[in-house]
Amino acid sequence: MADNGKPTNGKRLAAWQPGKGRVDLDKFDSDATPYSVGDKTRDKIEVDSLAQQIDALQNLLYANRARKLLVVLQGLDTAGKDGTIRDVFNRTSPLGVHAVGWKAPTEDERAHDYLWRIHRCVPAAGEIVVFNRSHYEDVLVPVVNGWITPEQQRQRFEHINDFERMLAETGTVICKFMLHIGYGEQRARLQERLDDPAKNWKFNPGDLDVRKQWPQYQRAYEDLLGATHTAWAPWTIVPADSKTHRNLMVATVVRDTLAGLDLCPPPANPALRGVQVD
Amino acid sequence: MADNGKPTNGKRLAAWQPGKGRVDLDKFDSDATPYSVGDKTRDKIEVDSLAQQIDALQNLLYANRARKLLVVLQGLDTAGKDGTIRDVFNRTSPLGVHAVGWKAPTEDERAHDYLWRIHRCVPAAGEIVVFNRSHYEDVLVPVVNGWITPEQQRQRFEHINDFERMLAETGTVICKFMLHIGYGEQRARLQERLDDPAKNWKFNPGDLDVRKQWPQYQRAYEDLLGATHTAWAPWTIVPADSKTHRNLMVATVVRDTLAGLDLCPPPANPALRGVQVD
Repeated sequence: MADNGKPTNGKRLAAWQPGKGRVDLDKFDSDATPYSVGDKTRDKIEVDSLAQQIDALQNLLYANRARKLLVVLQGLDTAGKDGTIRDVFNRTSPLGVHAVGWKAPTEDERAHDYLWRIHRCVPAAGEIVVFNRSHYEDVLVPVVNGWITPEQQRQRFEHINDFERMLAETGTVICKFMLHIGYGEQRARLQERLDDPAKNWKFNPGDLDVRKQWPQYQRAYEDLLGATHTAWAPWTIVPADSKTHRNLMVATVVRDTLAGLDLCPPPANPALRGVQVD
Repeated sequence: MADNGKPTNGKRLAAWQPGKGRVDLDKFDSDATPYSVGDKTRDKIEVDSLAQQIDALQNLLYANRARKLLVVLQGLDTAGKDGTIRDVFNRTSPLGVHAVGWKAPTEDERAHDYLWRIHRCVPAAGEIVVFNRSHYEDVLVPVVNGWITPEQQRQRFEHINDFERMLAETGTVICKFMLHIGYGEQRARLQERLDDPAKNWKFNPGDLDVRKQWPQYQRAYEDLLGATHTAWAPWTIVPADSKTHRNLMVATVVRDTLAGLDLCPPPANPALRGVQVD
């Protein structure tokens, strides 16, 4: 944590308190690489090593069946949410981790409160669930488009903090990542999707409309980062112009979080001692 | 509301604030009949009339598809939860109301936080959902049996208040009823289930064990009533020794709650004016 109490690049954010001043995303370099050893090949080897450690820790998480891990990935279009999931969790058994991608709500979902569909998909004991987008979209799209009032926005921040605190107090560890890319990097990635026929399927014309609202989205992100960075569900802002660095940073935080739970193999069952199978 | 700020028999509880002194259930007569006109036949006719009004109001609720009604029924064994649902909602179309009975959690449910299964079943816009038991069992059984600490009990009260506030702020009206029967009345009803072969199926030997913990359950109820009686989700304590009075009181509160929403039929669609079907 920086002296000014704001989340800083390249560090896990500790208990940054709302009200200690705005988060200013312009001060976070999207092309910084604080976790890198300065050599891309070695960084990639480290990502793979971390992915294997995450798999081993997930096995313990499952064996203990006591804690749950919820990983939230947020970021603008092309920020690399899909790529992060692939590269950080590709060594973990699909039995122990699953990803949930959140789209615009269905009619049935819209007929409920906005946390209803989210709550259904939180991890059970022993599970890791990765949210590709999340309930934070409900304090982004409606805010930028003026569909909710500032008072409703504030109310939602409080709902979300309450909801996440309840999850934390009932055994869920929550890691939230904001994949922070630059305006120029997004242009390059969108252009690549247009120019490369093999990537055309990833292009959505609506992405260009959202890109026009770039400053509004930055402000909405700053609001939500400030208001929902809590001791029980902290945000990490990940410089994400470099894909390798992004993976390295997310994998490190996830590995450290799991390692910090001090998971042990469950004790032996004395009742089974000496039992012979005929 | 009584002068001492405690919930009173026969009145909808207004904003009774936690901390204004304990609820003392012994001071609530379980055989009081404040809603009765003093004639059981006329009371029953009134219940049926209220049930029909609830049906009409539910049609408007559905047509507007904006608000949701959650009715929570709590009470000890034989307090009359099933009977209340039958008699108060028997005139309402099953398209618009459904009841959810909560039993001990399954393995999958226990692997999640205790509000997870509850949140899945809250009403959608236009719906009435009646909970036969509820998340309040999670601050009764574990408290009486010492499975959770007083600190965890306090935490759960806060989770529940936060959760219900979020529901309220996103369009759900919440009515919570504690069906309050006396110790003697429970004895009579259990004995009837034992003596009447046609009612034997309702008898559960476990009910006698729970009956032995009567004072502990009264205290746990007093704690939860005091801690979770909020402006956005108030409790009504219903004297329930008389079944007719119990129905009358619950039906009146539900009818009044729905009527208080000032639901109007949705406006006509001008685009349909003059359209002729060939």
